[in-house]
Amino acid sequence: MSLVEDLQALGQAARKAARPVARATSQDRTQAIHNMADLLLSNRDEVESANQLDMEAARASKLSQAMCDRLELSGQRIDNLAQALREIAGLSDPVGATTRAWERPNGLEISKVRLPLGVIMMIYESRPNVTMDAAALCIRSGNAVVLRGGSEAMHTNRALAKIVESALEKAGLPGKAVQLVPTQEREAIDILLTLDTSIDLVIPRGGENLIRRVVEKSRIPVVQHYKGVCHVYVDSAADLDKASDIAFNAKVQRPGVCNAMETLLVDKQIAETFIPEITKRYADYNVEIRGCEATCNISEETKPAQDADWDTEFLDLVIAIRVVDGLSGAIAHIDQHGSNHTASVVTENPAVAEEFLNSIDASCVMVNASTRFNDGGELGLGAEMGISTTRIHAYGPMGVEALTAEKFVVRGNGQIRK
Amino acid sequence: MSLVEDLQALGQAARKAARPVARATSQDRTQAIHNMADLLLSNRDEVESANQLDMEAARASKLSQAMCDRLELSGQRIDNLAQALREIAGLSDPVGATTRAWERPNGLEISKVRLPLGVIMMIYESRPNVTMDAAALCIRSGNAVVLRGGSEAMHTNRALAKIVESALEKAGLPGKAVQLVPTQEREAIDILLTLDTSIDLVIPRGGENLIRRVVEKSRIPVVQHYKGVCHVYVDSAADLDKASDIAFNAKVQRPGVCNAMETLLVDKQIAETFIPEITKRYADYNVEIRGCEATCNISEETKPAQDADWDTEFLDLVIAIRVVDGLSGAIAHIDQHGSNHTASVVTENPAVAEEFLNSIDASCVMVNASTRFNDGGELGLGAEMGISTTRIHAYGPMGVEALTAEKFVVRGNGQIRK
Repeated sequence: MSLVEDLQALGQAARKAARPVARATSQDRTQAIHNMADLLLSNRDEVESANQLDMEAARASKLSQAMCDRLELSGQRIDNLAQALREIAGLSDPVGATTRAWERPNGLEISKVRLPLGVIMMIYESRPNVTMDAAALCIRSGNAVVLRGGSEAMHTNRALAKIVESALEKAGLPGKAVQLVPTQEREAIDILLTLDTSIDLVIPRGGENLIRRVVEKSRIPVVQHYKGVCHVYVDSAADLDKASDIAFNAKVQRPGVCNAMETLLVDKQIAETFIPEITKRYADYNVEIRGCEATCNISEETKPAQDADWDTEFLDLVIAIRVVDGLSGAIAHIDQHGSNHTASVVTENPAVAEEFLNSIDASCVMVNASTRFNDGGELGLGAEMGISTTRIHAYGPMGVEALTAEKFVVRGNGQIRK
Repeated sequence: MSLVEDLQALGQAARKAARPVARATSQDRTQAIHNMADLLLSNRDEVESANQLDMEAARASKLSQAMCDRLELSGQRIDNLAQALREIAGLSDPVGATTRAWERPNGLEISKVRLPLGVIMMIYESRPNVTMDAAALCIRSGNAVVLRGGSEAMHTNRALAKIVESALEKAGLPGKAVQLVPTQEREAIDILLTLDTSIDLVIPRGGENLIRRVVEKSRIPVVQHYKGVCHVYVDSAADLDKASDIAFNAKVQRPGVCNAMETLLVDKQIAETFIPEITKRYADYNVEIRGCEATCNISEETKPAQDADWDTEFLDLVIAIRVVDGLSGAIAHIDQHGSNHTASVVTENPAVAEEFLNSIDASCVMVNASTRFNDGGELGLGAEMGISTTRIHAYGPMGVEALTAEKFVVRGNGQIRK
């Protein structure tokens, strides 16, 4: 068979598997996820051997240390992954849940009830634990899934996909409900993105180029997980101790992730008090500081920022700092440079807080908290498929509910339309 | 300027207008919609003259009587449209509504709050009142909108767009928040569908070819309003009087719309009782009946159905009837031939009803009610932008809430991530 035919067959198998998964009992789907955890632990040697092959290839091709670290799956990480799967198994089942109900004057009882989306395709890179997390989240929410991992994790992903297939079948579900795309040919993605009768939603997680390419080629709806240029605005009415802790935590606690802060905005009224303190703290932690002219004038540790810095996701110990003219200055900056991901205001003034929360268009807006909390686990959703920065279908962390739709259910006693 | 530049400018103007609309007070947006109604009534002569030009052109080009009827906007229809606008003005404002709230163990207060989608593009045909309805629904939900009506309604749509622009400006909102695409060149749609930085969502309403073309070309998410091959299943436990009224109403009350029934499924256990009665009723109303072999054997009025009939949206006084083997036979038929629009079961057996409601994947599933109730107004949503048959973002009638997203709002008191 040609590549096109292979992939069409894969898509059709996913579509065919989606219905029995959608109609399976909650217990069977829960059992399938526990089976994944059990089989992961009982097959850890196979997983570690496969991962070893990927790690060796990664080192040989001089992948960065950070990438190699993301790729590793062994020892305690396998136990942690099994534990994460059990937590997904324990999430309340979204399928069949009634989200609202009302009655019409003619006696019709209307409700909205969650159902699975159908077939989801996820395109991702590096971390092989995403393979299991995504499989479990899709089964928890009654969906079939097509997984397209990165070539660097191919051996590990294959070992994990084998485990998932057995886990599904042991629970009486179709093994094809979770399929790994068996080829790394780049063309495969383009072909898959045309299969709009087989696949309902595409979730790309990765770099800007990948996401752009997917959006350009896809006939299937795409929920984008775009870069996080996250902001913290320190208002003149801020508690400056809180502000310092939040600004420090948001930048340094884990700089390589999308909900880390990239740009700190400081109200000009407190700039001379706050900036020397926070820039010293950053500098002591070896954070590179790039500032606007006003910031440079106040802080010795700061180098002049370039225009591009305001739009850059550094993903590193680098921060941009800008002095702004109050709340309206902060909002104008975020309107222009934000990536609809996360923005936090530090203030003790409730009016400023509410105006910030209402005005800023980001998937998560915060007051007096670190941007690092924009995460499915931290917000209480359980695990997540990623963080959507498009407002269509889902905005922010996508937990199991974001993998469902809602249908209208109407109960009557013979009503007809006049 | 070239066509591309013109349309890019239009998209950028929409994007620029979206923010002030999103941030406008609810009162200002309500006022804008009342202004639309006021100006429609005070400019009715201009609207009727413009509509007269479209009607003359339609008659000259031998448009069908049904199309001409859809196109007409004069007299009482203008009053009705003004009234419909006032009802949209009176809908509760979705923007800023909190849909859920919870607290985390660390004290963070989380809520989900509705915000506008941004810029919506609607592509539609014939009925010029859609121009005003869509404008009002988008403004009610804080969105800007780009409207691409059909060439047959161009004069009327231009007159209405002028009214809408004045109505917005009188309320202090940007007139460009509602823009009519000023050209009927077909290429314009293709160009607009690439403007993914200016437009957030595309809603095509129209024939299959239009929708396919939009899905194929669009880089912007599309919510499809696809054909309605709607089903009624009469179970052996049905009250046959209710069944007859529902099956009759669902077919004949308004056969040319998407929520009219196309295929009637009858449990074989009651086929010999029910089919003669309902086919006589249809035949007396000049409904053309196409049946499976079993139906033809029972009913004199029935002609043999062709395979294609089970997948056809007749939009006319034509019905397909099939005898099925109980609930599982009905579900199997709808799985294969349904278009995810509407399906209704007639039964007094609650177990059958619940299994049907749970199993069928359609935007609206019903028990003991006419499919004609799958409509935003009838379900209590107020007006609708159309009925989505894709499960992504919205499924079923799209009222004002379906024109919003939900962001996460986090209120803390200095929390940082450990």
